[in-house]
Amino acid sequence: MADKLPEEEHPKPAFGWAARDQSGVLSPFKFSRRATGEKDVAFTVLYCGICHSDLHMVKNEWGVTQYPLIPGHEIVGVVTEVGSKVEKFKVGDKVGVGCMVGSCRSCDSCDNNLENYCSKKILTYGAKYYDGTVTYGGYSDNMVADEHFIVRIPNNLPLDAGAPLLCAGITVYSPLRYFGLDKPGMHVGIVGLGGLGHVAVKFARAMGVKVTVISTSPNKKQEALENLGADSFLVSRDQDQMQAAMGTLDGIIDTVSAVHPLLPLVALLKSHGKLVLVGAPEKPLELPVFPLITGRKTVGGSCFGGIKETQEMIDFAAKHNITADIEVIPMDYVNTAMERVLKADVRYRFVIDVGKTLKPDV
Amino acid sequence: MADKLPEEEHPKPAFGWAARDQSGVLSPFKFSRRATGEKDVAFTVLYCGICHSDLHMVKNEWGVTQYPLIPGHEIVGVVTEVGSKVEKFKVGDKVGVGCMVGSCRSCDSCDNNLENYCSKKILTYGAKYYDGTVTYGGYSDNMVADEHFIVRIPNNLPLDAGAPLLCAGITVYSPLRYFGLDKPGMHVGIVGLGGLGHVAVKFARAMGVKVTVISTSPNKKQEALENLGADSFLVSRDQDQMQAAMGTLDGIIDTVSAVHPLLPLVALLKSHGKLVLVGAPEKPLELPVFPLITGRKTVGGSCFGGIKETQEMIDFAAKHNITADIEVIPMDYVNTAMERVLKADVRYRFVIDVGKTLKPDV
Repeated sequence: MADKLPEEEHPKPAFGWAARDQSGVLSPFKFSRRATGEKDVAFTVLYCGICHSDLHMVKNEWGVTQYPLIPGHEIVGVVTEVGSKVEKFKVGDKVGVGCMVGSCRSCDSCDNNLENYCSKKILTYGAKYYDGTVTYGGYSDNMVADEHFIVRIPNNLPLDAGAPLLCAGITVYSPLRYFGLDKPGMHVGIVGLGGLGHVAVKFARAMGVKVTVISTSPNKKQEALENLGADSFLVSRDQDQMQAAMGTLDGIIDTVSAVHPLLPLVALLKSHGKLVLVGAPEKPLELPVFPLITGRKTVGGSCFGGIKETQEMIDFAAKHNITADIEVIPMDYVNTAMERVLKADVRYRFVIDVGKTLKPDV
Repeated sequence: MADKLPEEEHPKPAFGWAARDQSGVLSPFKFSRRATGEKDVAFTVLYCGICHSDLHMVKNEWGVTQYPLIPGHEIVGVVTEVGSKVEKFKVGDKVGVGCMVGSCRSCDSCDNNLENYCSKKILTYGAKYYDGTVTYGGYSDNMVADEHFIVRIPNNLPLDAGAPLLCAGITVYSPLRYFGLDKPGMHVGIVGLGGLGHVAVKFARAMGVKVTVISTSPNKKQEALENLGADSFLVSRDQDQMQAAMGTLDGIIDTVSAVHPLLPLVALLKSHGKLVLVGAPEKPLELPVFPLITGRKTVGGSCFGGIKETQEMIDFAAKHNITADIEVIPMDYVNTAMERVLKADVRYRFVIDVGKTLKPDV
């Protein structure tokens, strides 16, 4: 198997854009997808979001990348074929795939619909599938996955602006639920107003939670309050503002993946408050212990979500008209888009119009 | 008020041992206690435990000490007088006072029986009481406190070995309950086998929890397994042992107050596991974020407990025959005892026999 070319590995021709080396530059790439198995759903990819982790992966910044790598784990499209034992989907359904396409299905995590914490979960791209072949992501014309890992996209949810919910959305929705920060009347802080932060504001607001955006950039205030509906805004470098807000938050979703101080955030929490990190700095952060003890506060982490909860999140988004704010781009703009992601020069998520702009004859 | 001598401040003569300066050396000290108010309970002090924080306070290591300071917040004795509106206690009752003698009684924390997290709580010693006078602790012959802050000591709980439960006991009991680490069949780690750790093992075992003691000292293994009833023992510096135990614990109560690495402890946790710090290092600890995120783990703190829960803990201890392992000492041994506390040379708690050895005529 390993000796075959990617385009000969499987029976079904496929085409996408792949990174070939640490430069991270993406270019057209022929490969193949497996035949639709009895529990598989095959679909034409229409849109795929660009997640910040795609950027880390194409450049091998986490040291785990195998080239060629086709990124993309915010994938939506329309079903073209279903296996004989598929129960939940039929041809023509609108569907999505998020961060994973497999898990062991038998551990405690899997038994509790937390496949995302299964130690044998198979990520949507750059991972080894059960059959030994490499998984390829959504910067490609078609996709196939076990129906268990397929999410239904409700009719009223736009496919383009809905795509980023499959990673960015569930990554903030899940901790709001798990850490109990979803009760109407609560007051939650969202740190960082990027791809994750801006949908976190929308989800928290829809849950009836009062939202304060905390950012290093004073110029995001108007955007946060007027466009995203946040209730208030704190400039994290303004000590007077931060001081005045001490002890006011039930919880914080911190989306910042750069190294940053936790003490000012812990100080914003009420007693028993929870700071949840969903961005992963490469180096350890400084943890102030005394304020954790005297206020029985916690600092936790959270990593996207299970399939059941991802479907729940998508249904909740459709019901409350929650989508990501996006900039739709053609496939051949992807390398420029990656550079702009690096500079945080996007409000707030790029989505590749795969269906209309990925040309197999490039 | 501030101009009066401590012994003239209040009508009731009292006598104890106080630290006078940063040397931390304790010596006999005449002071006074207030008259028994209508909601107050007065009692003769029989025993008082020596907590490690007493050592920090007598030497002003936290920078908040006002001299003279009478330490002691693991205090038990027998009621001598009750105010006209006292409902729960009568003369002759065995009672105890722990870490606090007052709180605002009207904030969210107080309304939820979490007076220990009230921002206006009044600590048992070295704090300012409502009347503006300083609170003095249990290294003294008598005590008076509002009945709300008095705990009943059940008849079958030994007064001497029960005293340390009022701080050490509740400090570990409360997080076992709050963080849900009290379910039979769970597996919990206890880091550090000192005053707090050894009672944590006993409480967790009594809750039906499997206990692993984690210590830097291999020579504590026999003690942990045979005398305290722990199920297993890990030497934290033995990487093979630690590696083999990765992902096995539902939670950890970490009693170590020295700076120490959290990564090996976080690694011992299962997904969704909780590391609870009850010892407060003076400097921030290094927090590894990636394992928190990938396992949805949390690091939290906890600070003794509310009065209702302290009573519950004492009743639970009496029911399950849980006491501290103690070395009973006379009052005039206290300075030597403090030196031994500093060297961790005690198994596991000193308790001063105040009733028999505190002589007012010293």
